[in-house]
Amino acid sequence: MENTLLSPNETCIKRLKKKKCILPQVLQLKWRVKPKKVLIIKKYNDETINELIPGLVSWLRDLGITIIKESEDSCDDPLAEPLTQVEDPYSIDFIISMGGDGTILHTSSLFKTYIPPILSFSLGSLGFLTAFDYSHHREYIQSVIDGKCFVSYRLRLSCTVVSSETQVKHRYQVLNEVTIDRGTNPYLSNLECCCDGKLITIVQADGLIIATSTGSTAYSLSAGGSLVHPTIPAILITPICPHTLSFRPVILPSTSELVIRVPETSRCPVWASFDGKNRQELNRGDFVIIKTSRWAVPVVCKTDESNEWFEKLAQNLNWNVRMVQKSFN
Amino acid sequence: MENTLLSPNETCIKRLKKKKCILPQVLQLKWRVKPKKVLIIKKYNDETINELIPGLVSWLRDLGITIIKESEDSCDDPLAEPLTQVEDPYSIDFIISMGGDGTILHTSSLFKTYIPPILSFSLGSLGFLTAFDYSHHREYIQSVIDGKCFVSYRLRLSCTVVSSETQVKHRYQVLNEVTIDRGTNPYLSNLECCCDGKLITIVQADGLIIATSTGSTAYSLSAGGSLVHPTIPAILITPICPHTLSFRPVILPSTSELVIRVPETSRCPVWASFDGKNRQELNRGDFVIIKTSRWAVPVVCKTDESNEWFEKLAQNLNWNVRMVQKSFN
Amino acid sequence: MENTLLSPNETCIKRLKKKKCILPQVLQLKWRVKPKKVLIIKKYNDETINELIPGLVSWLRDLGITIIKESEDSCDDPLAEPLTQVEDPYSIDFIISMGGDGTILHTSSLFKTYIPPILSFSLGSLGFLTAFDYSHHREYIQSVIDGKCFVSYRLRLSCTVVSSETQVKHRYQVLNEVTIDRGTNPYLSNLECCCDGKLITIVQADGLIIATSTGSTAYSLSAGGSLVHPTIPAILITPICPHTLSFRPVILPSTSELVIRVPETSRCPVWASFDGKNRQELNRGDFVIIKTSRWAVPVVCKTDESNEWFEKLAQNLNWNVRMVQKSFN
Amino acid sequence: MENTLLSPNETCIKRLKKKKCILPQVLQLKWRVKPKKVLIIKKYNDETINELIPGLVSWLRDLGITIIKESEDSCDDPLAEPLTQVEDPYSIDFIISMGGDGTILHTSSLFKTYIPPILSFSLGSLGFLTAFDYSHHREYIQSVIDGKCFVSYRLRLSCTVVSSETQVKHRYQVLNEVTIDRGTNPYLSNLECCCDGKLITIVQADGLIIATSTGSTAYSLSAGGSLVHPTIPAILITPICPHTLSFRPVILPSTSELVIRVPETSRCPVWASFDGKNRQELNRGDFVIIKTSRWAVPVVCKTDESNEWFEKLAQNLNWNVRMVQKSFN
Repeated sequence: MENTLLSPNETCIKRLKKKKCILPQVLQLKWRVKPKKVLIIKKYNDETINELIPGLVSWLRDLGITIIKESEDSCDDPLAEPLTQVEDPYSIDFIISMGGDGTILHTSSLFKTYIPPILSFSLGSLGFLTAFDYSHHREYIQSVIDGKCFVSYRLRLSCTVVSSETQVKHRYQVLNEVTIDRGTNPYLSNLECCCDGKLITIVQADGLIIATSTGSTAYSLSAGGSLVHPTIPAILITPICPHTLSFRPVILPSTSELVIRVPETSRCPVWASFDGKNRQELNRGDFVIIKTSRWAVPVVCKTDESNEWFEKLAQNLNWNVRMVQKSFN
Repeated sequence: MENTLLSPNETCIKRLKKKKCILPQVLQLKWRVKPKKVLIIKKYNDETINELIPGLVSWLRDLGITIIKESEDSCDDPLAEPLTQVEDPYSIDFIISMGGDGTILHTSSLFKTYIPPILSFSLGSLGFLTAFDYSHHREYIQSVIDGKCFVSYRLRLSCTVVSSETQVKHRYQVLNEVTIDRGTNPYLSNLECCCDGKLITIVQADGLIIATSTGSTAYSLSAGGSLVHPTIPAILITPICPHTLSFRPVILPSTSELVIRVPETSRCPVWASFDGKNRQELNRGDFVIIKTSRWAVPVVCKTDESNEWFEKLAQNLNWNVRMVQKSFN
Repeated sequence: MENTLLSPNETCIKRLKKKKCILPQVLQLKWRVKPKKVLIIKKYNDETINELIPGLVSWLRDLGITIIKESEDSCDDPLAEPLTQVEDPYSIDFIISMGGDGTILHTSSLFKTYIPPILSFSLGSLGFLTAFDYSHHREYIQSVIDGKCFVSYRLRLSCTVVSSETQVKHRYQVLNEVTIDRGTNPYLSNLECCCDGKLITIVQADGLIIATSTGSTAYSLSAGGSLVHPTIPAILITPICPHTLSFRPVILPSTSELVIRVPETSRCPVWASFDGKNRQELNRGDFVIIKTSRWAVPVVCKTDESNEWFEKLAQNLNWNVRMVQKSFN
Repeated sequence: MENTLLSPNETCIKRLKKKKCILPQVLQLKWRVKPKKVLIIKKYNDETINELIPGLVSWLRDLGITIIKESEDSCDDPLAEPLTQVEDPYSIDFIISMGGDGTILHTSSLFKTYIPPILSFSLGSLGFLTAFDYSHHREYIQSVIDGKCFVSYRLRLSCTVVSSETQVKHRYQVLNEVTIDRGTNPYLSNLECCCDGKLITIVQADGLIIATSTGSTAYSLSAGGSLVHPTIPAILITPICPHTLSFRPVILPSTSELVIRVPETSRCPVWASFDGKNRQELNRGDFVIIKTSRWAVPVVCKTDESNEWFEKLAQNLNWNVRMVQKSFN
């Protein structure tokens, strides 16, 4: 029998059909059969990480695990199979990510539908998604193999770029946010912003960020958005340098369908980017359809995700951290 | 058979037992038996509204409806039964609210457990919860009686005030927010803020607002919070004039249990208030337990709550509204 | 004797030598000899404005005024002298600006040292600098000619772009702001920000706005800056989407000298623009020196500039404007 | 000849008469005759500070300095003269402040007109005004006596509380801010805010802060105000929890005269406090006149005030401070 780890996502899909709503949630990982295929994704061009790979690969092979690598040259292991040759994403049992949040965003972008659970080792600088210390990596990997861990389902946004002639040009799945901005144009477009088929506002700003709750600690935060716990089923609308004083950020239910459209009368094109990548021009009449994706990203987490999140707010963002006042001697 | 309109809330309660989570949601109203008892709550001391009551009561009686009034003197109708004599809240089929959002908050405070659906006529100044125009009141009331309407379940927060000796002093259900502030004390308490049993931060500020999504358009907004759609299952933490530059508002899942505590070392007492009322002192060691209430408030709404919300943001708050630039002639 | 209208600026220059400080201020206009040369600057490519020019020119000629035009084709008047042929800016008595704030910014950019007083007619959309209604233009122009008006001296920032080899590449005078941003680079530079020779902070953000008080109602406002009255001698530092939660905007005295530098270790170039124009790349080691210019822009204003400013905040920005609540009938 | 240290303030007063404007500035301290009278003000009820006093007093006496103490019991020294018996503030040469910023605010409140220069030792927790380390106190005091130091003139606001019958009730001089708030009233007054005789806006908020530039790092900052360098001649208007989304803080020239008035139609009284003290009720029709005081507070400072300020922003407020990212080994 194939080990597809469908159980959590199957549940999701069923719920989707019934309620048209996927909930972000933390579930316990359960394997039908023992995992035997692992994809390793590593931060690009990082010497320190490269040196860790051979030891990791060798140890995993001793456990009977088959290794998948991202590309021909991403992992100097002749026996590892490149991801491009894997036809069925369900055949990969889990993913080991070696890097930071950027590496997880990259991993997410490689899987446009189902994505296996990601065990992420914190080897980059900033980490909201990366929970695990590499110095105990064997222990953590073993827990995943033994099904003794929790998985946090992080919602993604499905983004469809459509031309003014209603031709689908691209589809992306973003874990943090889609950004639509004026690029280097001096003039700002009056972006039309629709929710569930109705125009809700006209945006005049440097840009607009449509983010997941997971993305609330990323670009949306810099633009003034609130911190939204990743288990909240929401879509965040945060303007970048708006031209009105009253454009407070808005948080919508994850069941919302947004359409952001460049009006026919726009003086300039605008630019869209997806998790900070795939930057592309949108011309008059082009639009992007944004809704919660059926395909959440399962991230292996420690049990107590709520407290972990607050610790990370303090560590990564100095959230409400005050200098301890020195006392007088 | 008693007409208890349990259907929607029964579902909620069952879900609660299973998932420990109540979801805010919009459901269609369904009666088991035709409604026959209506409570009328009106804004305090408003001449215009008082003059509308006799006509409304008389018309309802002609429909065979029994009228409940808030108190002896709230509705000069000798036949109406005072609410204080109603033992079972389930025996009230629905509530007609004559006023503004303040009247709905007041109505909510009268029901500490089950609260019947509220049909609210907009007769006050500001209205996020009040959808209906009184000039068509017969039509709207008939729709409710006929079960041809939608009900938006608005989450409440259950707040328990506990003394330092762990004695429960009060319980409140808030629809907008609980506020804990320094009152007129010059010194600020370092409030301890715990989430799900762990200390998440020490608050040094003029105060702290713990709000529902419904309350995101009220006090939390003034203090800098984001606009959160009422169907999002969330609890908002918004500081009032914090002493750190980095205390960005935080939005937690509705399943969180918060405890706000005055530390033993506090120099001054603090004050708590509940939907702007029942202001009371909290002394050293006292704390408030805040969690999502089992008893949501069902508010009769128009079908399309999402768009209605955006219209209200523009109308009530000028949200992202720009002056139309005059053109030159 | 030449009519150079030096009086106000001479005062400024003397003060500069003595106190190394130019103050923004409102002074009464005084002519030594009657003005006889006027420059007309008009909004680019605006049909309505173009049609007004012949009548204006003809009327001015009848008053014995010589007309200067911006360029050969900017004003279809064969007798008007192009600005490019004017050697001495002091020989122009005053400027008539036909457009909006953008036209004044453009006018400012044409004069890198002394700039004559600007009488601005509001023919564009948004106007903080444009006070006068064209329907009474003859009256207003006559007041200027008669020296019966006030002039608000608006500070400019002198910006010097210097290469890493300390070679001066460009000099600009900005009336609103200089912006240094990451452009379309995915990575943010850690801009070094020095004040009066000392490093004050490292900026990690989408960009940095260095604005005048006049510019406080422009881009700085969108990025979260405060509204600063134009007569306050200040330089505003406002970050665009900063990566820390604690980067509150800062307002420095107009005597400050700022240096914004791209560090040698920067991963990407950054972009500078000056009043929204002259966008250019800054590479590793390049820097921009920013200080208050000796050459303020004299803008003809109504007497009571303070109240005029508050009216414009309400009109142009809806500042603290509330919807009037409809009362119930 | 009396040693009055009038020189800097005399200059200020002359400028005032001429320009109706006092500028905040840094000047070098110059004595006409050697200082011989020093007032010591200490933080209330602080054991550690109390123990330092006898040694300080004894050393100052050896230098021939006469000691003034705040009150009978503030300094257990029978020979020290209480401040209440000092008739002429000019007879005090300088003040030694032992505490934190709070002690300086208290000192400021003791002098309603001329206030001698303050040398402040940092013995409290937070310090924007307190520059000097007590471990080198003899050295710093000697520099002041020798006239080898700089004095930063900090503007104060003169606040006059006037009853609805236009009777002056109180006068205060504030160094940080005057706050007008709703206190514990549930309803907010629509405060009328006038500038230079004209109504500029109606304030609906929890309160309003009118601050000096010095006060920009205090309460105004918590309420969302910008950081304004203390040498900028400005008055800050910062709302507390405003009821509109568009009430961005405003910074006015120090020459402005503000009047904040409780309208006759107000439902509740409001409360005013002055540097956090002298809290008092304002009833219908009462108002407060606020303008820059003729009597600035001279604070002894290190030479380079600009950089000192930025260091304090980082130290006291974590301004734009980021966690240093740990690198992986």
